[in-house]
Amino acid sequence: MIAPEIKQQLKPIVGEKWFLDSPSELYAYSYDATPMYQALPDAVIMPASTREVSEILKIANRHKISIIPRGSGTNLAASTIPVQGGIVLNMNRFNRIYEIDTKNLTATVGPGVITADLHQAVEALGLFYPPDPGSMKISTIGGNMSQGAGGMRGLKYGVTKDYIMGLEYVLPSGEILRCGGKNVKDVAGYDMTRLLVGSEGTLAVVTEITLKLLPLPETKRTLVAFFTNLVDAARTVEKIIAAKIIPATVEFMDQGTMKVVDEYAGLGLPLELKSMLLIEQDGPEQLALRDIERIAEIARESGAAKVEAAKTSEEGAKLLTARRAALSALSRMKPTTIMEDATVPRSRLAEMVGEVERIAGKYGLQICTFGHAGDGNLHPTCMTDERNREEIERVEKAFAEIFQASIRLGGTITGEHGVGLAKMNYLHLKVGESGIELMRRIKEAFDPNHIMNPGKIFAAAERRRLVVKR
Amino acid sequence: MIAPEIKQQLKPIVGEKWFLDSPSELYAYSYDATPMYQALPDAVIMPASTREVSEILKIANRHKISIIPRGSGTNLAASTIPVQGGIVLNMNRFNRIYEIDTKNLTATVGPGVITADLHQAVEALGLFYPPDPGSMKISTIGGNMSQGAGGMRGLKYGVTKDYIMGLEYVLPSGEILRCGGKNVKDVAGYDMTRLLVGSEGTLAVVTEITLKLLPLPETKRTLVAFFTNLVDAARTVEKIIAAKIIPATVEFMDQGTMKVVDEYAGLGLPLELKSMLLIEQDGPEQLALRDIERIAEIARESGAAKVEAAKTSEEGAKLLTARRAALSALSRMKPTTIMEDATVPRSRLAEMVGEVERIAGKYGLQICTFGHAGDGNLHPTCMTDERNREEIERVEKAFAEIFQASIRLGGTITGEHGVGLAKMNYLHLKVGESGIELMRRIKEAFDPNHIMNPGKIFAAAERRRLVVKR
Repeated sequence: MIAPEIKQQLKPIVGEKWFLDSPSELYAYSYDATPMYQALPDAVIMPASTREVSEILKIANRHKISIIPRGSGTNLAASTIPVQGGIVLNMNRFNRIYEIDTKNLTATVGPGVITADLHQAVEALGLFYPPDPGSMKISTIGGNMSQGAGGMRGLKYGVTKDYIMGLEYVLPSGEILRCGGKNVKDVAGYDMTRLLVGSEGTLAVVTEITLKLLPLPETKRTLVAFFTNLVDAARTVEKIIAAKIIPATVEFMDQGTMKVVDEYAGLGLPLELKSMLLIEQDGPEQLALRDIERIAEIARESGAAKVEAAKTSEEGAKLLTARRAALSALSRMKPTTIMEDATVPRSRLAEMVGEVERIAGKYGLQICTFGHAGDGNLHPTCMTDERNREEIERVEKAFAEIFQASIRLGGTITGEHGVGLAKMNYLHLKVGESGIELMRRIKEAFDPNHIMNPGKIFAAAERRRLVVKR
Repeated sequence: MIAPEIKQQLKPIVGEKWFLDSPSELYAYSYDATPMYQALPDAVIMPASTREVSEILKIANRHKISIIPRGSGTNLAASTIPVQGGIVLNMNRFNRIYEIDTKNLTATVGPGVITADLHQAVEALGLFYPPDPGSMKISTIGGNMSQGAGGMRGLKYGVTKDYIMGLEYVLPSGEILRCGGKNVKDVAGYDMTRLLVGSEGTLAVVTEITLKLLPLPETKRTLVAFFTNLVDAARTVEKIIAAKIIPATVEFMDQGTMKVVDEYAGLGLPLELKSMLLIEQDGPEQLALRDIERIAEIARESGAAKVEAAKTSEEGAKLLTARRAALSALSRMKPTTIMEDATVPRSRLAEMVGEVERIAGKYGLQICTFGHAGDGNLHPTCMTDERNREEIERVEKAFAEIFQASIRLGGTITGEHGVGLAKMNYLHLKVGESGIELMRRIKEAFDPNHIMNPGKIFAAAERRRLVVKR
């Protein structure tokens, strides 16, 4: 609850129109894209300037009111659920591209800019912003930054964190700071930029982002390969890397995902086969072609049952769009779809896919697996029904085992989704209790009153996936 | 001073042989590669295992004895001067390459591995570790990590911080932690890896480093272009980028540097010209060739007086070696050589070189400028004599103005050397007093007793370049 007199201080900062607290408005901000998490905020504020953010934070900090910064809410870690109430700070009005600097190859944007809008704007100038998270048509750059979002081009180009060069941010105290900038090289003190990236709104509110751009690759070539088993697909990925080829994209789908995607997109995939790789190479035409031909050879040598190069770029784009639709397609199957994010070193891919299959079998669950094979980044996705309490308990147990397996194989509990509420339970597996304790102390350095997105990443008490209602 | 009874606790941890405290030994660790800074440690300890480091830190932390982690001491920011005495922790015995993982394209090494030794080891397997700081034949990977070292390949490939995937580190409390690993994607909590990179030994002691590798480029092509003025050289760099070409290396030398390097290496450079660019492109042969031809055209169009492609790879290598020798060559001219590290966004390069010339003139100093033009990373280097107090005061003033100029142009006070003691005076220009305060609080989170390399980056009191003797 926010006292009426505090509301009266907050409203004039943004104007009545941008201060929301009717029941239906609060309900709309009680959830994000993560299934089964929900909690009502006390207010939603939509600031439009850094100064407004600073004024809001000063008041919130003084009265110890929680602040939950949020973009489009497409995250899959329940990172923007207002689990302790407070103010959801909707940053969507920071939606301007301030500058695309073609000389320094940077873009400076508000955190509310939609990822795909940035893609379009820079590509129109022959430039390239590689990070392409699954939700890019809705997600914001601020959200991508906050979660450390990945995508399909991580292997060759890296992920969001590799493209954030500078930030303007506001501390809970209301102080406005800057870090990084347009310099390719900069080692003036600790890397605050990188510390804020992936911090899920637990440290500060980011109000401006400077991004690195690249020249747009000249062409793209796409190839699909189908396999009678998982091991051959994984071995193909290994052999491509061993041949010193780094493709732009190497996506994996298992048979379950292939079936659902094929039904959704009408691709005519050979559904009798067990797995498929979708591989893209970009660059100068000759080079992309040379690599794709060599990759096709490697796939055949590694036992692919069928290898097909896309004849046109439209055909290539269609295949990629179909892969992007995997989550949507799977979501149609059952009332609740839980998409997870287990990552292993690339060389352990086959083992990890095997573990997911074994664990799904053990708990009698329907889990399809797809993901970014080149990065060892898998998305085991469970089709279930949250109303079936007994099954949900099995789902919990199965995912706990999946994360333990990925850690055992040298992997991590989240490759590109973040920790939020959804992975809190497992963070110690990766960073240890001492690592969590150290992160907690770093948070204190930014946020001594614990107002920034409290209860996320390493909350004290509650550590179970559950429906939160207040 | 370390009390004799504490020395008696420390010695058995590493053995007498690796505990140094004779006057001549202490003297050898009283300086690093930064001119004009010196201070004696109380002891030098050379541990050989993480457990030994942990035991030493526990004792040091209990008795609040400073710990200065150090590799080969090639840093140019006075980051390893034991300015408050204490224990220099020489990490050179951690000099093993533990693993080169050709499947995951990673190398795991001790922090004491020499940079060039790693280059050799991975290149023998057809792999590539791009960071190539000037001191790479002597410097260690641990030192590179600690300072966030750069090099000549930053523009296309990034710098050290972009290649550190995982660390093992020891907190002052003696706790042993790990962060990151071999996963291409990993967002499990705050990015501790990147926070430790460039922290100059002020947070923890790093005992193991996992590095990212790339496939070794197939070929390299080298080109030199000479200009009658500075602006044309800078414009050439801009136009190359505008043509969507990202060369592996774009090095700049002014006339002063050209003369000295030519005398040193006997290259027969056209010394009547004012500046030169040394450009390298790597990749598949056809592509490297295509880019180099296009770059030669751009240089000519931008007014280059002379453009020459290296005929053989030996000729190219010789040119690059000569550029690498710039600091050594300049060091022969006068008793004291102060090499600085001012960085601006690439588009401000010409202005920055102009500012350095203007400021050198104003203070009647001999300053040569060379550096990584593609990164906007310049090394204005002053030939002086530390015994000439009056001149040194002018040097101080000139560099202060140079850093102010680089900040004014959107740049930073250090691109690849770090802050240490040498840049402490200027850090607030880049990150602000609030930024420094925040970094200080982050340090507290790691090092509540302030034992880790105290007095560096953001020390409280002393902020002037001076000879420190105890």
